[in-house]
Amino acid sequence: MTPENVLVETSRLIDGKQTAEDIKVEIAAEVAQRRAAGHKVPHLAAILVGHDGGSETYVRNKVLACERVGFASTLLRYEDDITEAELLAKVAELNEDPEIDGFIVQLPLPRHIDPDKVIEAIRPEKDVDGFHPMNIGRMVAGLPALLPATPSGIVELLARQGIKTSGKHCVVIGRSNIVGTPVSILLAKNLDTANCTVTLCHSRTQNLADICRTADIVVAAIGRPEFVTADMIKPGAVVIDVGTTRVADASKKSGFTLKGDVNFSEVAPLASRITPVPGGVGPMTIAMLLLNTLRAAKGEIHPK
Amino acid sequence: MTPENVLVETSRLIDGKQTAEDIKVEIAAEVAQRRAAGHKVPHLAAILVGHDGGSETYVRNKVLACERVGFASTLLRYEDDITEAELLAKVAELNEDPEIDGFIVQLPLPRHIDPDKVIEAIRPEKDVDGFHPMNIGRMVAGLPALLPATPSGIVELLARQGIKTSGKHCVVIGRSNIVGTPVSILLAKNLDTANCTVTLCHSRTQNLADICRTADIVVAAIGRPEFVTADMIKPGAVVIDVGTTRVADASKKSGFTLKGDVNFSEVAPLASRITPVPGGVGPMTIAMLLLNTLRAAKGEIHPK
Repeated sequence: MTPENVLVETSRLIDGKQTAEDIKVEIAAEVAQRRAAGHKVPHLAAILVGHDGGSETYVRNKVLACERVGFASTLLRYEDDITEAELLAKVAELNEDPEIDGFIVQLPLPRHIDPDKVIEAIRPEKDVDGFHPMNIGRMVAGLPALLPATPSGIVELLARQGIKTSGKHCVVIGRSNIVGTPVSILLAKNLDTANCTVTLCHSRTQNLADICRTADIVVAAIGRPEFVTADMIKPGAVVIDVGTTRVADASKKSGFTLKGDVNFSEVAPLASRITPVPGGVGPMTIAMLLLNTLRAAKGEIHPK
Repeated sequence: MTPENVLVETSRLIDGKQTAEDIKVEIAAEVAQRRAAGHKVPHLAAILVGHDGGSETYVRNKVLACERVGFASTLLRYEDDITEAELLAKVAELNEDPEIDGFIVQLPLPRHIDPDKVIEAIRPEKDVDGFHPMNIGRMVAGLPALLPATPSGIVELLARQGIKTSGKHCVVIGRSNIVGTPVSILLAKNLDTANCTVTLCHSRTQNLADICRTADIVVAAIGRPEFVTADMIKPGAVVIDVGTTRVADASKKSGFTLKGDVNFSEVAPLASRITPVPGGVGPMTIAMLLLNTLRAAKGEIHPK
């Protein structure tokens, strides 16, 4: 069953698409203002290696989002056989290019390239994905940083939807470097938009369903379609679904359906608020990338 | 009541002093071997600003520990009125000095000096306190790093005492940048010595006692003497006490007693294993500082 087949009052759906749209409108207004004041427009560059279908889509959406808010954007494409040294040289070029305010290297990279080496080669103040250890470390310490887009998108989504987090018990399922671990860190921070008691669960967790049932807020970030079922949810809990797995579906033109980590049809009737997939966390990720690029352009994080 | 007044079988006490001693013996043996093989001995430098009593003691103990394992050590002392620029210049000197393998700047610093600026000025590969955002960020990502000493000391202590962590529920009380937050990150990592389900609690946590009572392992790192009481502990839990608050005590020559965050006399009879204060986590912190210095000297983390 897909989200559209389940009866859920609109007021309970967490509309990430609309919230992301609101953020884009704000960014576009600020860009217009800055341009009127004689500033250059923020400029995002994206490096795409190879022809992975998912990566192509993500990068295209990022470039379109840039246009939407009035950013300049540059897409740099390389074939799968680019060497690590060549890629590092491109990163070094973008680091030094004063026209480029921030850039991303779309993951995954071909096996012969070490992604950690590439990420660490990016200047932290241009690392608008927020993946560089300097940005992660500063986030842990509560210092100004470019925050990873999906985790900060979740925090922003909760805040803008008026969902109280302070003192709430948040259970995060999945400890990936990209989502689970950083969102568990962010939500525990001493900030008005956080201050959760956070439990980080993963493949070794025992009694996962019992732990999840104690949660006021569940963040599912495991990448296993429909993993979170009704028996894991306390009635009235807030459910944030980060999963976006492509599941084969012959009935769709694309040949696949995006499935979340939450069994929506089972869980939605129990939850006080829930994100759909698609249209929940996904759009927030791109909005936060744009916000990071704007902040990088303004030199907010690391004075240039 | 002090630990020595409570009847606890020695087998239940987690002897951090002995474990730290074991580590020092291993380090001393490796240093002797390296010296015999013609390598220079590891050299730790410590910068101490002002005359804070606690800081004086900590730094003296670190220098003594260096002598104990055959390291060279250098203590650089400055008065309270050193400027930030002067201190940063000293840090830059130590960064460039090939004789110095690692160094620490003892905290706290006088109010006119920004500690974050000083820490970020240290070269990450010489940051043997493991406080630099690069090291924290690499720790989060599971990349090689110099780990913060107290959190990694706790993980090492659990491992060497044969305490199983995988799949256990660990509740960390306190979200400081120095202990609570990083130990919560480390214990959740996909490592044989970790793999805990981790809940991070703090001042905004509701029903703290209820949450603590679900824990297989409790790590108390709040800095409030005897905060953790019997009603917060599940019988058979492992209790790690990171607190070391100086409480006035006229009966002592020093004028104070070190108090942990755990009410030892109440909790010890319930716990399957428990660290005393002093003699638990404290000695491990210095042992891990020495281990970081050895690893820095060997260029294990960041190739020189």
